[in-house]
Amino acid sequence: MKKILSIAMALSTLLTVAQSDEEVLKTIYTQSLTNGKSYDWLNHLSNQIGSRLSGSLGAEKAVAYTKEELETLGLDKVWLQPVMVPRWVRGAKEYAFIESERGKTSTVNICALGGSVATPSLGLKAPIVEVKNFQELEALGTENIEGKIVFFNRPMQADLIITFEAYGGCVNQRYSGAVEAAKYGAVGVIVRSMNLRQDDLPHTGSMTYGDLPVEKRIPSAAISTNDANLLSTMLTLKKDIKFYFKQNCKQLKDVLSYNVIGQITGSEFPDEYMIVGGHLDSWDLGDGSHDDGAGVVQSMDVLRLLKESGIKPKRSIRVVLFMNEENGLRGGKKYAEEAIKKNENHIFALESDAGGFTPRGFSFDCSDAAFDQVLSWESLFKPYLIHYFEKGGSGADVGPLKSETNVLAGLRPDSQRYFDHHHASNDTFDAINKRELELGAATMTSLVYLFDKYGVNPINASKEIKK
Amino acid sequence: MKKILSIAMALSTLLTVAQSDEEVLKTIYTQSLTNGKSYDWLNHLSNQIGSRLSGSLGAEKAVAYTKEELETLGLDKVWLQPVMVPRWVRGAKEYAFIESERGKTSTVNICALGGSVATPSLGLKAPIVEVKNFQELEALGTENIEGKIVFFNRPMQADLIITFEAYGGCVNQRYSGAVEAAKYGAVGVIVRSMNLRQDDLPHTGSMTYGDLPVEKRIPSAAISTNDANLLSTMLTLKKDIKFYFKQNCKQLKDVLSYNVIGQITGSEFPDEYMIVGGHLDSWDLGDGSHDDGAGVVQSMDVLRLLKESGIKPKRSIRVVLFMNEENGLRGGKKYAEEAIKKNENHIFALESDAGGFTPRGFSFDCSDAAFDQVLSWESLFKPYLIHYFEKGGSGADVGPLKSETNVLAGLRPDSQRYFDHHHASNDTFDAINKRELELGAATMTSLVYLFDKYGVNPINASKEIKK
Repeated sequence: MKKILSIAMALSTLLTVAQSDEEVLKTIYTQSLTNGKSYDWLNHLSNQIGSRLSGSLGAEKAVAYTKEELETLGLDKVWLQPVMVPRWVRGAKEYAFIESERGKTSTVNICALGGSVATPSLGLKAPIVEVKNFQELEALGTENIEGKIVFFNRPMQADLIITFEAYGGCVNQRYSGAVEAAKYGAVGVIVRSMNLRQDDLPHTGSMTYGDLPVEKRIPSAAISTNDANLLSTMLTLKKDIKFYFKQNCKQLKDVLSYNVIGQITGSEFPDEYMIVGGHLDSWDLGDGSHDDGAGVVQSMDVLRLLKESGIKPKRSIRVVLFMNEENGLRGGKKYAEEAIKKNENHIFALESDAGGFTPRGFSFDCSDAAFDQVLSWESLFKPYLIHYFEKGGSGADVGPLKSETNVLAGLRPDSQRYFDHHHASNDTFDAINKRELELGAATMTSLVYLFDKYGVNPINASKEIKK
Repeated sequence: MKKILSIAMALSTLLTVAQSDEEVLKTIYTQSLTNGKSYDWLNHLSNQIGSRLSGSLGAEKAVAYTKEELETLGLDKVWLQPVMVPRWVRGAKEYAFIESERGKTSTVNICALGGSVATPSLGLKAPIVEVKNFQELEALGTENIEGKIVFFNRPMQADLIITFEAYGGCVNQRYSGAVEAAKYGAVGVIVRSMNLRQDDLPHTGSMTYGDLPVEKRIPSAAISTNDANLLSTMLTLKKDIKFYFKQNCKQLKDVLSYNVIGQITGSEFPDEYMIVGGHLDSWDLGDGSHDDGAGVVQSMDVLRLLKESGIKPKRSIRVVLFMNEENGLRGGKKYAEEAIKKNENHIFALESDAGGFTPRGFSFDCSDAAFDQVLSWESLFKPYLIHYFEKGGSGADVGPLKSETNVLAGLRPDSQRYFDHHHASNDTFDAINKRELELGAATMTSLVYLFDKYGVNPINASKEIKK
């Protein structure tokens, strides 16, 4: 008996050696770089389908296409999860100009913010006043703002290395600018685009009216960084210039849409769920290649790469393609709601929603114990130049799954170019590099493999070893 | 006396605290990202001057422009170092087709390799034979090669993470393909472009004839990856297809050119030289923005950023803009030759010649002691996501300065996109991201600052502390 046991142990050691984590990661990366599907999928999503704003035909086509593609992968289950989503439409191309004196105008590039109301059908012309933040707005007060358009012009901070931090420092102007300005009787809002580059492209994005009654809602638009600079300079030279803009966007009734889900059922712990995902919807100006077509196809490829690399997960691995991250987060909320309703134990969730650029690592929302476990894997990732492992946020769609014991994570690609494209007409397929996209998919797959193999924290892991 | 000493020590501690390395690096990065000059300089170099092949008008203009710009920086010295350089001209645009049968042709995209001879003036048509390497060439031998064109078609290996390694594994086809094929009586050579992407752009680059007499030299050209795939497929279907190409490039007489040098003279050790550089010349198809306009402007900005950050170097810091890296390395050799002649002690040399992409770190050619010193600085770079510190190569131009005690280093930016542009017509300014370029300049400046402050290795450093 002793002899058999030691043979068995030797054999198991041998098998472990034959499939070391180093070797498995090497297989995963090689598969992705030489036999990846993410780039082809994204080519179709971006160039055949195009933009995918919630409730649009593009979003509907993307649901059908990704479900169909997942069905070819030999997963254990592929299904659609119904969810009602808001539907906002941009309407005709927006038009705007600065009027420095009667008859003397400069056309500028704007786009309506997602969720904004329209201007009157002939447009809106009013004096414009520049502020950098809500404190300046308050200091000006009703007497200086009433009847005017407010121009929020606080730029993204260039000296922050992670550009998402610069975005975080500015985005309240876009999201809450209208509701704040309306308090003081403003008639419209123009917001500097969330873009670190000086160029001519306006960047859209979501905004809120909070609980403002319909009749008090004022139209809100983004202006390109070049034109924001122009407007600011003109305001320095001449305080009483006017701004004109015209947009006929509209919020329609909610419509039925879907999260797209595929699953490999776990061989040992089928009731422990690990999910990987991105969001299927995109803004309407570009084709949503980086935000978040990249995350969608990378997540799809995680399940394919696991299979291609001969990995049979112990836990149930799901790819979830969320609908409506951009203007409502209904998909993410619905998925978490259903998971709770069905008492599904989600031990891990990873989102890719920061662009398809070279991956640098992950951000983790988890316990210290789970994070220590992650750090113990750092050297496995070193050959792939993956070095960023920090505690922090994860992703908007997976956020609602947060529990005290699970691990939420977000892929962190190089962020330098991201806001050049974010929510703008140049978020298109030509800005995607195939290898960078594939490295991201491999990096995600590797993390999923490790968490599936070792469980979610040292306590779980040691339990497993003991049994 | 003791009291004075302890006051002095306390004061010195205080000063150190007031200007910690962390703070200095923060200043350098902030300066580069908010007040950098590298992007503007590169805009001029790329869009006003354009390509800068050795001996061309562009190269001449680049010498004059960069000297002029360095002269505005208030350095202690700016000068030109004369060097004779080769002059090769491409002539008319190349033309090529595959002839599967008489009258049935497919046009393909080629470009002459730098240094190649022309085809006969009416072009060259011959049967073509595909090989993957020199072993296959040898195995085929004279009987299968004589009178034919050899097609070298070994692709870059996609599963290598650092793309320069994939380049290293292929470039002998381009550099030595002609001289090897000529041994077996080949009449011409077509080489698959060194490009990881499948596209239509041929990539040029240098090649050699070794000591082959002039009459035995055969023309050599690169073919785009898409067309290499097409040609290979056609050869699989039909062995006896012919290939036609026509190029009228020419090697002219050597001409006088210059390295451009600027210097801040050291305050304590003026005879210890630290240099930072890139190469001013570029291939002729694009405008050389990544290779190596980026390295040129980053190196120039290192000296400016030191000044703007209030750093007064103890050692003499030179920016050296080398001429003729691409097809001769005459500038790098000349600089080292003069340094030896003048007995200048070069303790450190850093080159940026791997593109203007997000910096990841450095590669070091130095002693273990010096490398340990570098590793002790790792945490200083962490806030800037600089994590790659490895022993290895440095840069072609600084290579000739190698001594037993000095440190040679090369900036290592993200390499995923580099070979999409390398030596091709799309190595242009629009492929440059301002922030990525500026992060590179700041990263280089930070390393220069640290080596200037602490000296080149622990032995030097401790000497200094003792004195």
